[in-house]
Amino acid sequence: MRYARVRVQGVPLHGRVEGDTIALLAGSPIENPAPTVIGSIPTAHAIWLPPVVPHVFYAVGLNYPRHIAHAAAETPKRPEAGYRANNALTGHGSPIVRPHDVTGRFEAEPELVAVIGRTLRHASYDEARAGVFGWTVGNDVSARAWQHEDRTLWRAKNSDTFKPMGPWIETAADPLAPTTTTTLRVNGEVRAEFPTGDMVFDPYDYLVEMSRYLTLHPGDVLWMGAESVCGLAPGDTVDVGITGIGVLSNPVIQAEPVSQEGPLP
Amino acid sequence: MRYARVRVQGVPLHGRVEGDTIALLAGSPIENPAPTVIGSIPTAHAIWLPPVVPHVFYAVGLNYPRHIAHAAAETPKRPEAGYRANNALTGHGSPIVRPHDVTGRFEAEPELVAVIGRTLRHASYDEARAGVFGWTVGNDVSARAWQHEDRTLWRAKNSDTFKPMGPWIETAADPLAPTTTTTLRVNGEVRAEFPTGDMVFDPYDYLVEMSRYLTLHPGDVLWMGAESVCGLAPGDTVDVGITGIGVLSNPVIQAEPVSQEGPLP
Repeated sequence: MRYARVRVQGVPLHGRVEGDTIALLAGSPIENPAPTVIGSIPTAHAIWLPPVVPHVFYAVGLNYPRHIAHAAAETPKRPEAGYRANNALTGHGSPIVRPHDVTGRFEAEPELVAVIGRTLRHASYDEARAGVFGWTVGNDVSARAWQHEDRTLWRAKNSDTFKPMGPWIETAADPLAPTTTTTLRVNGEVRAEFPTGDMVFDPYDYLVEMSRYLTLHPGDVLWMGAESVCGLAPGDTVDVGITGIGVLSNPVIQAEPVSQEGPLP
Repeated sequence: MRYARVRVQGVPLHGRVEGDTIALLAGSPIENPAPTVIGSIPTAHAIWLPPVVPHVFYAVGLNYPRHIAHAAAETPKRPEAGYRANNALTGHGSPIVRPHDVTGRFEAEPELVAVIGRTLRHASYDEARAGVFGWTVGNDVSARAWQHEDRTLWRAKNSDTFKPMGPWIETAADPLAPTTTTTLRVNGEVRAEFPTGDMVFDPYDYLVEMSRYLTLHPGDVLWMGAESVCGLAPGDTVDVGITGIGVLSNPVIQAEPVSQEGPLP
C-alpha cells in the first residue's frame, strides 16, 4: 500500500494512492489500519504534503562506507542517531527554497526513511522489523558553509523547506534487498546511484539500540543517511528515487532578501 | 493565567489552574484563547503532563556568562539553537529515570522555557515578544559521560524522562525582570541560584534570528539554557523554581536492567 498526505481545499488529509487516484481517508493509516474512505482525487491534481509529521524526527549521519571514507571520518562503532526539525519538512513537488544569504555548497543528500508503526522500547531485532510501518524517501538538503561555521545544524540542515519527504509511504518495499537502488538526479541527469542497503548499521540495528534508552512512537521517522551528495542551484529540479518506494521530486528556487530584516542584535 | 495539561481517566486534557482547582478545557488554550470548560479536578489530585508537546523542541546551549566561563567555552557571537526530542518530555511530579548503565555525572540543568503562541517568520523583536504565549520551567537532565563519548546528544540528553517540563505555562510572568530568579534545589537544599534574565541573548533575540531561516509555530518551545548544574542520585527529589512561574519537582529513580536485552549487534 502507498499512503500519502495531500492538501484538499486547504485541509491536510491522509490518502491511499491507487494508480491514478488517491482515496481520501478519515484518519491516519498508522493509527487505524482500516480507515474510512471519504472521497477521492486524481493523483495528477494532488498537492503533496510530507506523508507523516513525526513526534520525533531522527536522522543518521555517517552510515555508508563510501561516504565515511570520503569524509575521512571514523566508521561508527555503534548506531547513534541525531535529529532534524519538523519545520523543515516539505512535500513532493514543493520548492526547496535556497536562502538569499547562503554561501558555499548547497547540496542534496538522498536518503531512505523508515516510518515507525508501533511503540518500541527494549525492542529485539525482530520486533524492530515488525515495528516499521513503511518506507519513504528523504532529501537531507544541506548548506555546507553553515554546517561548518555554526555550533549546531539549525540552519545548515533545518531551514524551512530543507527536508523534502515523500511522495508517500510504501508499506510493501524491501529497501535492504540487493536489487534496491537509491538514485539522485538533477534535471534528469543521474548524479549518484548506490545500493540502498549498503549501510554500516541497518534501520533495525538503529531501532534496537535507540529503544534501549528511548521510546519510539508510531509516526516517528528515521532518516538513514546518504552515500553520495550533489550540488543544487536555483532553477534545478532534484529527484531522489528508491526502487520499489517512489521518486521524490522538488524544484529549487532562490529566496529574495526580506527588506524589513534589520541587522543582527 | 496558568495553563497545564493533566491526565484524567487516562485522557490528556488541557486545564486552567485556578488556585486549588484545575478547570478542564475542551482544547488547547494556545490555539483557542477562550476554550470551553468541560469540568474540573482538584489540583492536589492532578497527574501533570508536559504543558505542551511541541512541533519542534528548540534548546539553547551556552547562554549564561558564568556557565560559559566554567565550560571554558567561547561566548556565542550569535543566537544559535539546538534541539531536544519529545520522547524525553515528562511532567511535574513524574520520575526522572536514571538508566541502569549510565556512567559519570548525572546532572540537572535548570532552565527557563518560552512557549510560542503565534507563527513567527522574519519577526522583529517586538513581534517576537508578542509571539511568546507564556513561560514554563524545564530541567535539561544530562548524562555527562555519554555527552562526551557519543557523536550526538541522543541518549546523553534525550533518553526517556530526561526532559521534565512544567508544572504549567504562566502567561503573565516577566522572566527578564531583574527580580526573577532561577533556583535549583535537591531534597530541599538550594544547590544553585541565579538571575534568570542574565543571558547572553534573550529569548526574543533567539526568535528574531531563528525566524530569519525558519518558521516558528504555536506550541513550539525554546529552552533557554542554564547557568549552573548539580548532580542527581536515585532517591533525590529535584526542584527547579523560577519566580512568578512555578516550581517543577521530580523524583529521581534508578532503572533496573532489562533482562531480555541482548548485546549490541
